[in-house]
Amino acid sequence: MRFAVYSTDGRAGLAVAAADGVFHGLSEGAPGYPGSLDSLIKTGADLATIGAALLESAPVVDLKAVTLAPPLARPGKILCVGLNYAAHARETGREPPTYPTIFVRFPTTLIGDGAALVCPRVSEQLDYEAELVAVIGTGGRHIAKADALSHVAGYSAFNDGSVRDYQAKSTQWTMGKNFDATGAFGPVFVTADELPPGGAGLRIQSRLNGVTVQDSTTDDMIFDIATLIVFLSEVMSLEPGDIIVSGTPSGVGIARTPPLFLRPGDVSEIEIEGIGILCNPVVAEA
Amino acid sequence: MRFAVYSTDGRAGLAVAAADGVFHGLSEGAPGYPGSLDSLIKTGADLATIGAALLESAPVVDLKAVTLAPPLARPGKILCVGLNYAAHARETGREPPTYPTIFVRFPTTLIGDGAALVCPRVSEQLDYEAELVAVIGTGGRHIAKADALSHVAGYSAFNDGSVRDYQAKSTQWTMGKNFDATGAFGPVFVTADELPPGGAGLRIQSRLNGVTVQDSTTDDMIFDIATLIVFLSEVMSLEPGDIIVSGTPSGVGIARTPPLFLRPGDVSEIEIEGIGILCNPVVAEA
Repeated sequence: MRFAVYSTDGRAGLAVAAADGVFHGLSEGAPGYPGSLDSLIKTGADLATIGAALLESAPVVDLKAVTLAPPLARPGKILCVGLNYAAHARETGREPPTYPTIFVRFPTTLIGDGAALVCPRVSEQLDYEAELVAVIGTGGRHIAKADALSHVAGYSAFNDGSVRDYQAKSTQWTMGKNFDATGAFGPVFVTADELPPGGAGLRIQSRLNGVTVQDSTTDDMIFDIATLIVFLSEVMSLEPGDIIVSGTPSGVGIARTPPLFLRPGDVSEIEIEGIGILCNPVVAEA
Repeated sequence: MRFAVYSTDGRAGLAVAAADGVFHGLSEGAPGYPGSLDSLIKTGADLATIGAALLESAPVVDLKAVTLAPPLARPGKILCVGLNYAAHARETGREPPTYPTIFVRFPTTLIGDGAALVCPRVSEQLDYEAELVAVIGTGGRHIAKADALSHVAGYSAFNDGSVRDYQAKSTQWTMGKNFDATGAFGPVFVTADELPPGGAGLRIQSRLNGVTVQDSTTDDMIFDIATLIVFLSEVMSLEPGDIIVSGTPSGVGIARTPPLFLRPGDVSEIEIEGIGILCNPVVAEA
């Protein structure tokens, strides 16, 4: 199933796509509104049952007439993977890693499909990064690789907007990865049963103002989703609603000659096969 | 005021110290229980009023007879600062930085005073780090230095338990800083009015099995609390309940010859003047 999280008239809504692609949804306050996707995933609700109920009784929602939100507003952990595509590792001048490079984003960076990516006042180096997101549905620690994908509730897309000069101000990338409104997440959440295991073999692209700048497949990941879950859960308890933002293919702006950064007025688009298009305009910080 | 967060009989409690040092508190379910410190800080409740009400009507709580918890269970952001004391930066072989090195912990790492720090199965390199915590009370972005300390609700202590081999497995420290039950936080939360502005000039020490291994003062921070708030809020919106774990002085185990790591059976103690002693035994992972 494909779930969209949105707001309309200031109220949160949750919709699910029917077989014909039309979304049916309810808003907070409406009888039968099942709650946010954050709360449903955190409480282990059966998303198939929730989705079926919405399809049966909820009115049609035109996603173009509402404001899309990130599928999860407050993931407990936003675990991001650096240098997880061999060609991207090489374009940054590094060897492909033998252990995943994990950095962190906070929910204050998140925006939904259609919302504006914000170029910070203090930098001219906001860069795009197309990434596949895996959403943890069942928590755990020391998860075996054979079980890992059973912990994934579903998938989405991410534009890991990176402020390159701030990313390089110290050895740790935290600051460059955490400017407000630089992490686009969406457009929808797709349950794991709708996609190949581990979200493998999906074409992943990004376009800047309609020109393709990244074009790869999730098969090119060095550490696939199951392997990432093994490495992460060796260290920490994964919890429902945690997300893994699994790294970007080659073609990022900073690796180009001359570098290509996002400017106000640009449109940055991420497309992942089977998930959809995450499209965000770029604005200057007010 | 000094607040203690605890649990007893499986119920969360909140207590405040009277002038004689005796704590008075209430548990979830009791009439007048004001809620968790997380929720009080997130909703902007007036802690002085809450504390006064507890002092007036709540029974005495013997903190030795209850289980202390981290003052905040789920900080929205746990922003940690690396290399923030000049002597510590030098002992790791680095020059004192000109921009703060920010890394991240997740709430899954947190334990309270008295709980066990867990040596992971996969490593023998769990290290102690004594740190002052500033708790954000009022959120904001682009906070000016002159206003920065008005955003701090109070202070606490932290033992930033670091798994050194995992910290070094990639350029990013996330994994080594996020093993479950390696972040001791407490013993109490002290409101900002009880301490010098910015928590400056406080003696900060750590002891391993009673032997002093770190001994410095918060005046030796390279970036003081107000400056950290300026740097962080240039990048991201700070929110009530976010915490800044402000770095450790020299004397950590990995910088010693031979290295000194925490072993099961050890006791690791952090003491910060005006806050108290955060004391945690060390156990092997089950």
